[in-house]
Amino acid sequence: METIISSKTKTVIIGPERPFTIIGERINPTGRKLLAREMAADNYERVISDAIAQVEAGAHMLDVNAGIPLADEPAIMAKAIKIVQSVVDVPISIDSSVVEALQSGLEAYEGKPLVNSVTGEDERLESVLPLVKKYGAAVIGISNDETGISQDPDVRFAVAKKIVERAMDHGIPREDVIIDPLVMPIGAMQFAGRQVFRILERCLNELKVNTCCGGSNISFGLPNRPPLNAHFLAMAISHGLTSAITNPIESEIKQGVLVADVMMGNDENCTNWIVANRAPDEDGGTRRARRRRRRE
Amino acid sequence: METIISSKTKTVIIGPERPFTIIGERINPTGRKLLAREMAADNYERVISDAIAQVEAGAHMLDVNAGIPLADEPAIMAKAIKIVQSVVDVPISIDSSVVEALQSGLEAYEGKPLVNSVTGEDERLESVLPLVKKYGAAVIGISNDETGISQDPDVRFAVAKKIVERAMDHGIPREDVIIDPLVMPIGAMQFAGRQVFRILERCLNELKVNTCCGGSNISFGLPNRPPLNAHFLAMAISHGLTSAITNPIESEIKQGVLVADVMMGNDENCTNWIVANRAPDEDGGTRRARRRRRRE
Repeated sequence: METIISSKTKTVIIGPERPFTIIGERINPTGRKLLAREMAADNYERVISDAIAQVEAGAHMLDVNAGIPLADEPAIMAKAIKIVQSVVDVPISIDSSVVEALQSGLEAYEGKPLVNSVTGEDERLESVLPLVKKYGAAVIGISNDETGISQDPDVRFAVAKKIVERAMDHGIPREDVIIDPLVMPIGAMQFAGRQVFRILERCLNELKVNTCCGGSNISFGLPNRPPLNAHFLAMAISHGLTSAITNPIESEIKQGVLVADVMMGNDENCTNWIVANRAPDEDGGTRRARRRRRRE
Repeated sequence: METIISSKTKTVIIGPERPFTIIGERINPTGRKLLAREMAADNYERVISDAIAQVEAGAHMLDVNAGIPLADEPAIMAKAIKIVQSVVDVPISIDSSVVEALQSGLEAYEGKPLVNSVTGEDERLESVLPLVKKYGAAVIGISNDETGISQDPDVRFAVAKKIVERAMDHGIPREDVIIDPLVMPIGAMQFAGRQVFRILERCLNELKVNTCCGGSNISFGLPNRPPLNAHFLAMAISHGLTSAITNPIESEIKQGVLVADVMMGNDENCTNWIVANRAPDEDGGTRRARRRRRRE
């Protein structure tokens, strides 16, 4: 049960016995007006600096979204993919709700990418899965369908199961489907956390697939969101979550993930934790220098 | 599945649908030489200030331990219990490995206390459980026995089951037994976390009993322990842990527990989280004043 994603030179393995996979969320013009204007005007300076900063902060993969109203999304997606791949070596999650943009991103990408995403709607399944198969990609399947997002975790699980089965019908192996259980804001839905933990356990134990979620939706509308997001991620990881699209630059998130790796026995000898928390001048180096060494 | 503990005037209900129960760990001379010397010399000033500070910081109950080498532990226990009950109104966990000290503490206590603890060893069960029954107390059962602490979570669960059954044989109801799954240091035992999560789930779903653990043993020997302890607690809570003997004065611990309550749907309308994280001068009051109001 391991999902392998790659760039030209780097492979990421997502799985429950591996350190958690952080997919950097920042390259997304939705809600970032300045970034949207720049990308529409063929200016990718901020895309480049966001890519580098997220990898420097510990992102194992980057999500790239080019959804800008009235812009030529397929063209912008292809360009963004090429530029990001020219400045960092981590694999990419190609993120769009527009099939043509996914296709254009897949065409531009070098390696085996992750397609973000397909839902359980028949029309989406039949338009996205053939592309995933054609390009040999992996895909995120979101557990909603024509009827919307069920509040019953077992119904959401049934949608997840449908997506996995449909993918296999298209010749996509089970391990190349990653399920997003859909995290709802806990401030609006009291049992959103328990629901997600339940779906994650069933994905792990019954469907035997990896999982991914957004890292911040849970805390929507509440004050002091970073510790909510960080502890939620750690809790979800203990129920089987294996990746998240989130912001590694938020130090709480990074810390929560490192702790969760320790607690799941996926940070062997607690090496990553010890290195990240060594006293600043124990070896005369700076934290940044140590981080650099660790990655090498 | 609710354990009711009480003082003269205050009741605490421990259960999986309730906010998590924090049992303050500070009144324990083990490893605190100054406190041990003072208690042995009949000086309880530090016991009093520790009691008040822990309750002020959010402890729902206090653990009281009087284990001082060569001292008259039963007498010191009785005195400490009386003094703590005279300055704070929260219920107490009477903590000793000496049966006479437990008896003396039970005799001194007003209300329904928690006895900390009994193990799965036959000799301990037969000496402690009659006392628990006689005084109508609840008891923490630790999942080790004559053979030591098993690394197999299913063996530890079997010991827990034996303790619950033996308690019931003594006329103690299931809901008055709280199981401690025994948390081992993750730095020495890679799968200590996964083991505990497994035992907690089985205690919740199969034994249908509440659970308690120490809040800091998991991080023994590792750097930067507070975030390890805090995230571990949140993860454990999501697997069914309902109480912990820990230090509420550590802000990370308090925060991790508050987040876990939100994520489990046990902080209705997220009220406790919102109050704890309201901007400092939103209503012109200080944090301390707000905390005081909230408790009233």
